[in-house]
Amino acid sequence: MPFVNIRITNEGATTEQKQRLIQGVTDLLADVLGKNPKTTFVIIDEVDTDNWGIGGESVTELRKK
Amino acid sequence: MPFVNIRITNEGATTEQKQRLIQGVTDLLADVLGKNPKTTFVIIDEVDTDNWGIGGESVTELRKK
Amino acid sequence: MPFVNIRITNEGATTEQKQRLIQGVTDLLADVLGKNPKTTFVIIDEVDTDNWGIGGESVTELRKK
Amino acid sequence: MPFVNIRITNEGATTEQKQRLIQGVTDLLADVLGKNPKTTFVIIDEVDTDNWGIGGESVTELRKK
Amino acid sequence: MPFVNIRITNEGATTEQKQRLIQGVTDLLADVLGKNPKTTFVIIDEVDTDNWGIGGESVTELRKK
Amino acid sequence: MPFVNIRITNEGATTEQKQRLIQGVTDLLADVLGKNPKTTFVIIDEVDTDNWGIGGESVTELRKK
Repeated sequence: MPFVNIRITNEGATTEQKQRLIQGVTDLLADVLGKNPKTTFVIIDEVDTDNWGIGGESVTELRKK
Repeated sequence: MPFVNIRITNEGATTEQKQRLIQGVTDLLADVLGKNPKTTFVIIDEVDTDNWGIGGESVTELRKK
Repeated sequence: MPFVNIRITNEGATTEQKQRLIQGVTDLLADVLGKNPKTTFVIIDEVDTDNWGIGGESVTELRKK
Repeated sequence: MPFVNIRITNEGATTEQKQRLIQGVTDLLADVLGKNPKTTFVIIDEVDTDNWGIGGESVTELRKK
Repeated sequence: MPFVNIRITNEGATTEQKQRLIQGVTDLLADVLGKNPKTTFVIIDEVDTDNWGIGGESVTELRKK
Repeated sequence: MPFVNIRITNEGATTEQKQRLIQGVTDLLADVLGKNPKTTFVIIDEVDTDNWGIGGESVTELRKK
């Protein structure tokens, strides 16, 4: 039943890496809380670096430094 | 005042279907809780099937089975 | 596979009303998009009226008017 | 440590405007709650007007009126 | 029409501070993007420090250091 | 920079289990995507079983079966 939303910057995560994240989080919830993988949802959102800010600056700007 | 976020896989929901979801959820909240449609927000997010996992697998992979 | 998050103010929605919201949204997604109820998640968040703002004011303040 | 998610319709917010939103929200949290900008996350989601509904209608339809 | 979700740790933000956050974010969106305050939603979620992690540790643990 | 939101039902996850979830997800993102733990946020939301529905029924009802 868990729902996990992973938000990362849109910087080239491959399909294979996203599959590893889905599998890894699902296994973690099964191991720690005994949750059923069949009803474990994982959604990955990839966010444009102009649209993600830390310390008051967008990641686009931070990457230039 | 309700805020409803509907997340579905990005598999071709038409504009007309999305309008029906918006109308249906808004009506439901008016019927059940008497909420004012004018201040009921509905946001639909369409998620790539590589980015949605169930049972440790992406929907892309599940669709192949 | 849909995931629906309904956010409402914490103003006394009953268990029966929340059940009707869960059932209503699940039926809507089955009707409109043919989604499988068994893998349709609905989460209802009830938010304190001090913590919900519209027009720059909290709902607590708006309710006093 | 705050996490702020700003959801707006996808109607042409410029990079400069998004930077001002990131900076403005980060400053606000520092001023009001003394939060450290270095660990303040801001994510802006831009939503298609077909996918955002108010009063039971999509913003696309509302814009036509 | 903007929807803003502010997530902070549950460490005693006062009603007055939350009102300032609601007002501040609403004004920011009006100033930067000309958004109508009447249809600007702000929701503040206060999260238990056991339930918020950074660098692999909960804020509860980080506060002890 | 990743932000991870884990939503589980409010059924007694211990502080130690939540710490293991925080650590596990942070390690996973470091391993798979090389993300910096210091700027990896994890938030765990625990949802009342009346407020979580699957297959049109609340988890409270499902647990009775």
